[in-house]
Amino acid sequence: MAIVLDAMGSDDFPKPEIEAAIQFSTQTREKIFLVGHRDIIYQHVSENDLSGLPIEVIHAEDILEMGEKAVKSAQLKPNNSMAVGLQLVKEGAAGGFITAGNTGAAMFNSLRKLGRIQNVARPALTTLFPTRSGFCVVLDIGANSDCRPEYLQQFAMMGSIYAEKMQKISAPRVGLLNNGEEAGKGNELARNTYTLLESSGLNFIGNVEAKDVFAGKADVVVTDGFTGNVFLKTSEAAAKMMSDLLKESLLSSLKTKIGALLAKDAFKILKVKMDPNAIGAAPLLGIDGLSFVGHGRSNSTALFNGMKLVKEAMDIQLVSILRETIQEKLS
Amino acid sequence: MAIVLDAMGSDDFPKPEIEAAIQFSTQTREKIFLVGHRDIIYQHVSENDLSGLPIEVIHAEDILEMGEKAVKSAQLKPNNSMAVGLQLVKEGAAGGFITAGNTGAAMFNSLRKLGRIQNVARPALTTLFPTRSGFCVVLDIGANSDCRPEYLQQFAMMGSIYAEKMQKISAPRVGLLNNGEEAGKGNELARNTYTLLESSGLNFIGNVEAKDVFAGKADVVVTDGFTGNVFLKTSEAAAKMMSDLLKESLLSSLKTKIGALLAKDAFKILKVKMDPNAIGAAPLLGIDGLSFVGHGRSNSTALFNGMKLVKEAMDIQLVSILRETIQEKLS
Repeated sequence: MAIVLDAMGSDDFPKPEIEAAIQFSTQTREKIFLVGHRDIIYQHVSENDLSGLPIEVIHAEDILEMGEKAVKSAQLKPNNSMAVGLQLVKEGAAGGFITAGNTGAAMFNSLRKLGRIQNVARPALTTLFPTRSGFCVVLDIGANSDCRPEYLQQFAMMGSIYAEKMQKISAPRVGLLNNGEEAGKGNELARNTYTLLESSGLNFIGNVEAKDVFAGKADVVVTDGFTGNVFLKTSEAAAKMMSDLLKESLLSSLKTKIGALLAKDAFKILKVKMDPNAIGAAPLLGIDGLSFVGHGRSNSTALFNGMKLVKEAMDIQLVSILRETIQEKLS
Repeated sequence: MAIVLDAMGSDDFPKPEIEAAIQFSTQTREKIFLVGHRDIIYQHVSENDLSGLPIEVIHAEDILEMGEKAVKSAQLKPNNSMAVGLQLVKEGAAGGFITAGNTGAAMFNSLRKLGRIQNVARPALTTLFPTRSGFCVVLDIGANSDCRPEYLQQFAMMGSIYAEKMQKISAPRVGLLNNGEEAGKGNELARNTYTLLESSGLNFIGNVEAKDVFAGKADVVVTDGFTGNVFLKTSEAAAKMMSDLLKESLLSSLKTKIGALLAKDAFKILKVKMDPNAIGAAPLLGIDGLSFVGHGRSNSTALFNGMKLVKEAMDIQLVSILRETIQEKLS
């Protein structure tokens, strides 16, 4: 079944998207709908380049604004590339959708086109967060600023299924992001969620702090969208500040410059470990269909990896599993 | 007027405390009450060593447990060194108190001994957070997990006074920690606080994200204790993970090891910039008296710097200024 790739998503669109589509369809022979503004796509690739490949360019008239205005823009522009692409999933022409565009806009469009899985109160933005030992599934990272304990319990259920089925982790360890490790810590939401998770039947390991998340103590980390977003942005900003300060310090003398030159392989290793492109994309869990979002800085490799994830989720019928589990646990 | 130094606070207590007390009293001739368990203090210093110095050792029978149990321990042990020390401030024998012990326990003891400034709803844990251009005052970082908008408005007022009077910044820029820069972003608490801060008469610059805080865009950053604590711990954990990964990468080959050796001055610069000991301590704002808390990893230099801050706050009568401003703005 076909995969829809938003051609207008990444910071450098549509180049990484076109490259990823060509690479993926060449390798897998899977059908790809490349959705975006026709004129912009064909500025970067000729029909000839695509001939013989199972890539179909689908025109989307509207172009979303970037950054914080993206969600409002999506509301005003029903023919944006995400909406047009998700319509193909809704109609059953494609099995899944992926974009490297604004996450909020992707959530808005996905909710409008595909809706929620029955009994899911709030779909969550999910990310695969790099840890010392691999990756952990963190949700919600921004879709729901105000949450109830029941929402977080559902996030835990959905995150756990994702970690089990897609990350191949049996009995994933679920942690609650909190401001201390002891039971009873946290704000009202965290304290009440703790109680729910204790009796959820999930492999709940209790509260986790940032250092535990980084150390890889949990496979799934649950939090409200406000805290999750602050957590994610703080991690990224701290890593960037460290790396900027390090660069400046290394340029401070000839001796340190020579040292930096000799040590450059080490910095490369570090860069690879912190690379947001390694994963490719993460799903909007709770949406009644496959909708994946990649990092805005995605290059073609990231998008290629993301499309592999979408294909895998299609193959294992992730959404059906989510539907059934939610149904079972909540009935 | 005398300063009280908790001898039992830092991770390596009482050695850094004894050294700091000797250094500070030698240099300033200010009277110091060094409060802790007599036997433990005199295991590390003889009465002879202190003779001629204005240092008075005050015995405190109870010893607080460390870590998350510290607050409960403070509740059960009324004669812990913080409580005994703060009693001296309450009685007017000393002008201010400083500890490198558990912040929650310091807040608990300070509230019990000194109480709140009139009309202050909730005192806040405060930290001076390192930025690209200096430091910013961040509060609350953990005292109040569940906040109302009015609490955050008071945090903003108190943080602003601290930045102005102690950091010597005129019209300090106040930012609200949020998950986006636009007005209207955030959870219910953040949205309602935004409205209050807009009409507060403070130099409110709007929402700030982690990257803005690190870039030094605000002099005061206001948030609830839950989010503030997650922000702080995430920053620390991310910096530590980066630094650990860097160390490992640098040890990966002979060439990178030689590079690291040559570049070691650069790593020193980085370490100094990220050093939590540089500042010394931060106040519990809203407590009706001077109560400062330093980092658990404080060495004698950090404690010495912290005592200088306490002395400065005493000299400018910080608590009186806070009292008057709160009174004026809230009446």
